[in-house]
Amino acid sequence: MINGNNIVAGNYATVEGELFKATDPSTGEQLTGDFYAANALLIDETLNAATAAFKVYRTIAPATKAKFLRTIADKLNAVGEELISRAVAESGLPVGRITGELGRTTGQLRMFADLVEEGSWVEAVIDTAQPERLPIPRSDIRRMYTPIGPVVVFGASNFPLAFSVAGGDTASALASGCPVVVKAHPAHPGTSALAGAAISAAALETGMPAGVFSLLYDNGYSVGAQLVKHEQTKAVAFTGSYNGGMALIKLAQERKSLIPVFTEMGSINPVVLLPGILELQPEALAAKYAGSITLGAGQFCTNPGLILAVKSEGLNKFVAALGGAIELTPSATMLTSGIWKNYEKLSGEILAEQGIELITKSTAINTEKVNQSVATIAKVSAEAFIANKKFGEEIFGPWSLLVVADNVEQLQEVIASLDGQLTATVMAEKGELAAYNDLLNVLTEKTGRIILNGVPTGVEVCAAMQHGGPFPSTSDSRFTSVGTGAIYRFVRPLAWQDWEDALLPPELQNANPLNIWRQVDNNWTKE
Amino acid sequence: MINGNNIVAGNYATVEGELFKATDPSTGEQLTGDFYAANALLIDETLNAATAAFKVYRTIAPATKAKFLRTIADKLNAVGEELISRAVAESGLPVGRITGELGRTTGQLRMFADLVEEGSWVEAVIDTAQPERLPIPRSDIRRMYTPIGPVVVFGASNFPLAFSVAGGDTASALASGCPVVVKAHPAHPGTSALAGAAISAAALETGMPAGVFSLLYDNGYSVGAQLVKHEQTKAVAFTGSYNGGMALIKLAQERKSLIPVFTEMGSINPVVLLPGILELQPEALAAKYAGSITLGAGQFCTNPGLILAVKSEGLNKFVAALGGAIELTPSATMLTSGIWKNYEKLSGEILAEQGIELITKSTAINTEKVNQSVATIAKVSAEAFIANKKFGEEIFGPWSLLVVADNVEQLQEVIASLDGQLTATVMAEKGELAAYNDLLNVLTEKTGRIILNGVPTGVEVCAAMQHGGPFPSTSDSRFTSVGTGAIYRFVRPLAWQDWEDALLPPELQNANPLNIWRQVDNNWTKE
Repeated sequence: MINGNNIVAGNYATVEGELFKATDPSTGEQLTGDFYAANALLIDETLNAATAAFKVYRTIAPATKAKFLRTIADKLNAVGEELISRAVAESGLPVGRITGELGRTTGQLRMFADLVEEGSWVEAVIDTAQPERLPIPRSDIRRMYTPIGPVVVFGASNFPLAFSVAGGDTASALASGCPVVVKAHPAHPGTSALAGAAISAAALETGMPAGVFSLLYDNGYSVGAQLVKHEQTKAVAFTGSYNGGMALIKLAQERKSLIPVFTEMGSINPVVLLPGILELQPEALAAKYAGSITLGAGQFCTNPGLILAVKSEGLNKFVAALGGAIELTPSATMLTSGIWKNYEKLSGEILAEQGIELITKSTAINTEKVNQSVATIAKVSAEAFIANKKFGEEIFGPWSLLVVADNVEQLQEVIASLDGQLTATVMAEKGELAAYNDLLNVLTEKTGRIILNGVPTGVEVCAAMQHGGPFPSTSDSRFTSVGTGAIYRFVRPLAWQDWEDALLPPELQNANPLNIWRQVDNNWTKE
Repeated sequence: MINGNNIVAGNYATVEGELFKATDPSTGEQLTGDFYAANALLIDETLNAATAAFKVYRTIAPATKAKFLRTIADKLNAVGEELISRAVAESGLPVGRITGELGRTTGQLRMFADLVEEGSWVEAVIDTAQPERLPIPRSDIRRMYTPIGPVVVFGASNFPLAFSVAGGDTASALASGCPVVVKAHPAHPGTSALAGAAISAAALETGMPAGVFSLLYDNGYSVGAQLVKHEQTKAVAFTGSYNGGMALIKLAQERKSLIPVFTEMGSINPVVLLPGILELQPEALAAKYAGSITLGAGQFCTNPGLILAVKSEGLNKFVAALGGAIELTPSATMLTSGIWKNYEKLSGEILAEQGIELITKSTAINTEKVNQSVATIAKVSAEAFIANKKFGEEIFGPWSLLVVADNVEQLQEVIASLDGQLTATVMAEKGELAAYNDLLNVLTEKTGRIILNGVPTGVEVCAAMQHGGPFPSTSDSRFTSVGTGAIYRFVRPLAWQDWEDALLPPELQNANPLNIWRQVDNNWTKE
């Protein structure tokens, strides 16, 4: 049962605010449930509660925090059926995809539970005292990561579970020891309400301070802006468009105190097809990329929006095969009518630019549904691409642009002209790669993750994952929003000098009671 | 022999720019040497060279990089005598202090050489492939830290060696694999020229790409502003005042691409004297703090500018003893006439505020020298402190303000009212600390380093050091500018997916040829 009131520190708060409803993007029809935009008073109340909760939650025992995270996963599974059907209705994404996303979401929560329970993530560093050192004795200094305070998380439209209310940002922030205030995405408020209720119930059941989690609604931008500017907010996490991300950055710049604002703003994820593989397996490549480009109606941060290659017979075959596959790709419901309109507009505008040539558009359009994406591929020359910045901008949807270079040098110039990217991919035959060292170096500088012979869609949730690249793909390339590393966005090092052992956090006590890996006098040890 | 031309990628560049000279702050007289402000053309040339050098330097072998850093230390020692006497003349700091600072500077360079040679600092994380995983196979993903690009370092006035041209920012940036462009501090251009020549010679001798290091002069703000706004600059490191740091932050906000700007903007470093220790050893405490407040004419980021205590007989004794010591503290030459004027102005203005009472001023003033600091201590009530934000602002110099609370609750209110700090100190008798849990929690949230029974001046250069606290003490509390951790300011994680083993960086290859600690499938190992 969906309750569309704002959740403030464990309670549903009623406000006389703007009321809005969710829409099924495949029909354009309204769904059940009334949702209420939060107001300034509620925002203050929320952040006061989060700040109060932080005083308790920041030093809560790792095992207790892990139990909270696992209980959230359990509660999500308990409402799984309702959650999945509502998310499908609100997003237009297929049941299989949303079911997988629920698994990813609970998997992330359990992964962070394991991480905090194991405990070594705090990167404890201990330099013991040297009382005999000359000319002056050395103090005992011990450092570890500690949470920074209330984090505002913006739900993302394209992952209504895994990057939304109970998604990776929330999981990593809660794991770090920070309370979370989620601004629900207006495209899936019902899904948000269900996930929010699950987190609240888990917090209550595991005895967390009430302000550890809140969920606020808004059908516009005002609540988000107030949250970012609120002096009690200590960090912001956002996944969405360049314009949306930069708007939050600008708001944060107006603050009195500086805070980290993590915005993942998308990417065109260049794919470089090397000559050898194009010659040997153009059709297999085309099939692989047709699938990656159109996955989830192309609504991925890691959608391969740019394909780069040197002209060749193999490339011609690839283009023919890719064109054939794209032409037959069935349309899919896009996440919102706004995203659909934007896709139509941008893909239309770009096709009117000088030097671009349409390769093909899908003709398999479902006319019984609305907001249907039309998969499209086009091509330009390397020269035209370099000359016109517009060709390098993201078009969110099942769109990809092929850039044809005359030779490898020109291919490298195209790569050098790119902005920062979340991912970059190279498709190569065995042994082919070694001859492209310069090109690979240039490509590496542009990206956070470099892939060989794979597709960039599909972001593994693991310790080694890097989902964050040079600006403008993200606001800060030094952090990741996927994988265990995401926790480091919300912590800062804190050092204790000559402190009493019994009063140190357990992570830093001599006896190492949590049995974690620590760097003691420059050696890694569990002693 | 001092050459006052700008050093651009290993060469002295002559410009027809503004010429300026160094001043001896103890006499106000000009020192030998002409220095030339850089211009826009030179800045472009410098950053082009740095960007070109980055392409080579970013993947240079760790042992080669270590040799470069150690050779810088050797070259600094080789000009040690000239360097020390020039730094003394330009800063007014005593020979002993500058000699120690040279040791710290070369020590930092050797520490970073050891760090990069050992190699584990890159935090390699490897998640191996699981080709049999269902529903989809898992890719092999390997991540490590890589440098972000050219770093602009601003020399700081208060550490003409250790936080200047060859100081900790430069050492950590070079260690990370980033080229460095230093903007010399105009208060010690001769010292800068000597250190810059040492770095250039070391770069040449060890075969570094020429653009790995450049040194630019300016007697004003224009060159620094242009460097921060230059699109090829990828990070900025600065230590100085709040106004200076915030000016750089604002400039960086005007950039097209976002970059990290690390500004260490000072702090008043509260010292909490608990009742027990005040009762038992008020005089010893006073002697300790008189020394810390006046060390280096109080010109430390970690100068204890605020002393907090509950009123008591012991506190009265402490005040009497501290007053006596401060009154007899000899004046010292301040770094520049600007800093001296500012100290005179701010300490004068604050003493005119309502509710403040002068405890004592030093009467031991050296009238044969100019720009002499007058050590001063004053006191206010807790109520007055909380009511007037000015009492919490830094006064750079040998100044300290005692805040007297009526009781522990009020003491805690004072702490809660503080801005973010680099350090916080608690002076306590053995066993006394445990009773102040709430107070300590509030204090801990405000600071990057918390010290028991010590003085905050004296920042150990080691792995566990945290020199960076919540805003406004630094722009980003998640990083440190002292200790081995400082290297992490200039790197970002980069992940390779399914890459060919032989083409991976050695840090990530299966055989672990560098024998570093790595996290492989969630286990720390050197295998």
